[in-house]
Amino acid sequence: MKNTSILKIVMNAVRETKPLIHSISNYVTVNDCANALLGIGASPIMSDEPEDVLDITSICGGLTINIGTLNTRSIEAMFTAGKRSAELGHPIILDPVGAGASVLRTRTASDLLDQLSVTVIRGNMSEAKALAGGAWTTRGVDVCSDDVVTEENLTESVRFACELAATTNAIAAITGPIDIVADASSAYAIRNGSPLQERITGAGCMLSCMCAAFAVAGKDFLIEAMLAAVAAMGLAGQQAEKRMTQSDGNGSYRTYLLDALYQLDGDALEVGAKIEKVR
Amino acid sequence: MKNTSILKIVMNAVRETKPLIHSISNYVTVNDCANALLGIGASPIMSDEPEDVLDITSICGGLTINIGTLNTRSIEAMFTAGKRSAELGHPIILDPVGAGASVLRTRTASDLLDQLSVTVIRGNMSEAKALAGGAWTTRGVDVCSDDVVTEENLTESVRFACELAATTNAIAAITGPIDIVADASSAYAIRNGSPLQERITGAGCMLSCMCAAFAVAGKDFLIEAMLAAVAAMGLAGQQAEKRMTQSDGNGSYRTYLLDALYQLDGDALEVGAKIEKVR
Amino acid sequence: MKNTSILKIVMNAVRETKPLIHSISNYVTVNDCANALLGIGASPIMSDEPEDVLDITSICGGLTINIGTLNTRSIEAMFTAGKRSAELGHPIILDPVGAGASVLRTRTASDLLDQLSVTVIRGNMSEAKALAGGAWTTRGVDVCSDDVVTEENLTESVRFACELAATTNAIAAITGPIDIVADASSAYAIRNGSPLQERITGAGCMLSCMCAAFAVAGKDFLIEAMLAAVAAMGLAGQQAEKRMTQSDGNGSYRTYLLDALYQLDGDALEVGAKIEKVR
Repeated sequence: MKNTSILKIVMNAVRETKPLIHSISNYVTVNDCANALLGIGASPIMSDEPEDVLDITSICGGLTINIGTLNTRSIEAMFTAGKRSAELGHPIILDPVGAGASVLRTRTASDLLDQLSVTVIRGNMSEAKALAGGAWTTRGVDVCSDDVVTEENLTESVRFACELAATTNAIAAITGPIDIVADASSAYAIRNGSPLQERITGAGCMLSCMCAAFAVAGKDFLIEAMLAAVAAMGLAGQQAEKRMTQSDGNGSYRTYLLDALYQLDGDALEVGAKIEKVR
Repeated sequence: MKNTSILKIVMNAVRETKPLIHSISNYVTVNDCANALLGIGASPIMSDEPEDVLDITSICGGLTINIGTLNTRSIEAMFTAGKRSAELGHPIILDPVGAGASVLRTRTASDLLDQLSVTVIRGNMSEAKALAGGAWTTRGVDVCSDDVVTEENLTESVRFACELAATTNAIAAITGPIDIVADASSAYAIRNGSPLQERITGAGCMLSCMCAAFAVAGKDFLIEAMLAAVAAMGLAGQQAEKRMTQSDGNGSYRTYLLDALYQLDGDALEVGAKIEKVR
Repeated sequence: MKNTSILKIVMNAVRETKPLIHSISNYVTVNDCANALLGIGASPIMSDEPEDVLDITSICGGLTINIGTLNTRSIEAMFTAGKRSAELGHPIILDPVGAGASVLRTRTASDLLDQLSVTVIRGNMSEAKALAGGAWTTRGVDVCSDDVVTEENLTESVRFACELAATTNAIAAITGPIDIVADASSAYAIRNGSPLQERITGAGCMLSCMCAAFAVAGKDFLIEAMLAAVAAMGLAGQQAEKRMTQSDGNGSYRTYLLDALYQLDGDALEVGAKIEKVR
């Protein structure tokens, strides 16, 4: 990408405006999501009770819906909060965790996409394909090996991402060894990140929450805001990897990743982001 | 405070008597709450199913009710557990997370206060004001900037805390840059703590659980027990800040804070607590 | 144990086959459970919605049921998932957290044992005794001091473990200062571990999830697989203790424990496991 100063602007805007983000999250990674938001300068609030979410989402700037441990009550809250958020013009990020792994997850994610004006879909390629009605190939919450985005299948993957974006009228942020951010007509490949991010739970969930904060702070240039969020997480993943010592494992890596998000500023992001326009 | 040896006595009593604390908590910070309780020598148990809480709360010594991710089921459990705890003479700590941010939270916290004999209200000033029927100024789960306790508004803040205590017949433990612990007639300002505590999720929730353990161990001098708990968290926050290196962020800070609670003993608390009687 | 190379084989098989484990867990320790599974090379998925669990458990290799924060909805999911898992021949690990501490927990754990073909019961001695219909002596989620397995009561404890295994037709993995793994006719004492494991929340929950992964990878020699899992956690606990510095506490210990699980390989397990056949 030629002009990376926009990344810096958005990143700094997150720290300056401290957007309040409503997350309907899963209970596995929610603590890391909250600390990731606090680390980048945003402010988290979690609520998944239908009777509570209207008020909560109304005082926030953006909404993340994560179906990682969905249940009938939280699903109702997702729709209630999503509709209000849409009315208020808030960005909505959908993280379709495990879409393709169960009928309930696939259907819920699809229904959310249909009924809400989702701003960004942030998931792995298997989840994205499940949303697009692809064959059921998801292996739990991890991407299927067939679906991993590689240099070999990048062109095809990018075409898919743009089609998903066109169909859903949302930005597609499909993450993996190579990340793709796409709307209907343009697409970018982001080559930041560390393989260690897959050895902890929650890197994707944290990113989805961050996408909401970046979308609020950069609402006038959403694609660039998503590039900033995705590159920020990838860059933090790289910084965290650099701190690993011989006795460290994924416990320390998780801590280092949060630390790196906390440390990241606009200048570092501008310098470190590896973004290529591929369409 | 002239006589700080009472702080030492209570802190040591927590470690010696290992009070078992029932927490009806939120799923965001609950793991840190459990580890904070274990760190100070207490023992945690979590349960929020109405059918389960009667038995669980009965074998415990104290109860913390935290409404951070309340739902209709857990609200029922809060009332059920609270009534049994009151019958058994257990201290009840109410943490009204996000009171003022939604009707459900404000009403639930108020109803809990009305129907249970709450021993201690532990929250930030915005939440405390919401309980007192103030204007809706809460910004999510964080304090509104207008409500932050400062040296300038300390006298007024202390007066408010005493009034809240008088009205609710509970000790008010209102935390922020300056912490206030007050009953109807007396009040203390605690000037421990670190600004980094606001950069992680859960410092307040952990403190609320700690208040329950300190209230059990120091049941004959509750005000002093609350001073000990609040100062202990603040002091741990300071110790944690001292360990921060250049590449650390809120991930490491969270770990250091738990470590500091684990390390804290009565002597260190007696020496480090900065408590002033202000009324 | 004479032949410890089987431990190495199972440990390596976990890393090579990356079993997908469905956990119906508690929301207190679930994040650590997920990271522990990732650390040893397995893959976690959590789901506790009755409508979701049939699909989820079907794509997994094993199931862990942990009743630490059970509720009426998740209890239904436990039975639904357990029945499907049994049909599919998946190993089922039951972690009866707090059995004996409430009627609901004791009854739920007993009913799960009765209605599902549970492969392994993994709990502390108080929980195990509650399942066996013993007196109600559980102190919350921790073992009662009377129930701690010691060298003095080892013979009696081993007899109890074998009886529990015989009655329930499950392997009993009863953990504490000395761990016991037993089936109806044989039993082993494992003397790995660190006292610090009791100062964090979740060491037992993580182990239960690990038992599922080891049972999948070592399905042809289940007793040895459980010995490997229990010794692996104990050895990781020892390694973590070695890293503790003077300012570290249970925050750091938790991180080190996850790191040590991540670092552990079959060779280290074979060398470090302290397993004695006691029956």
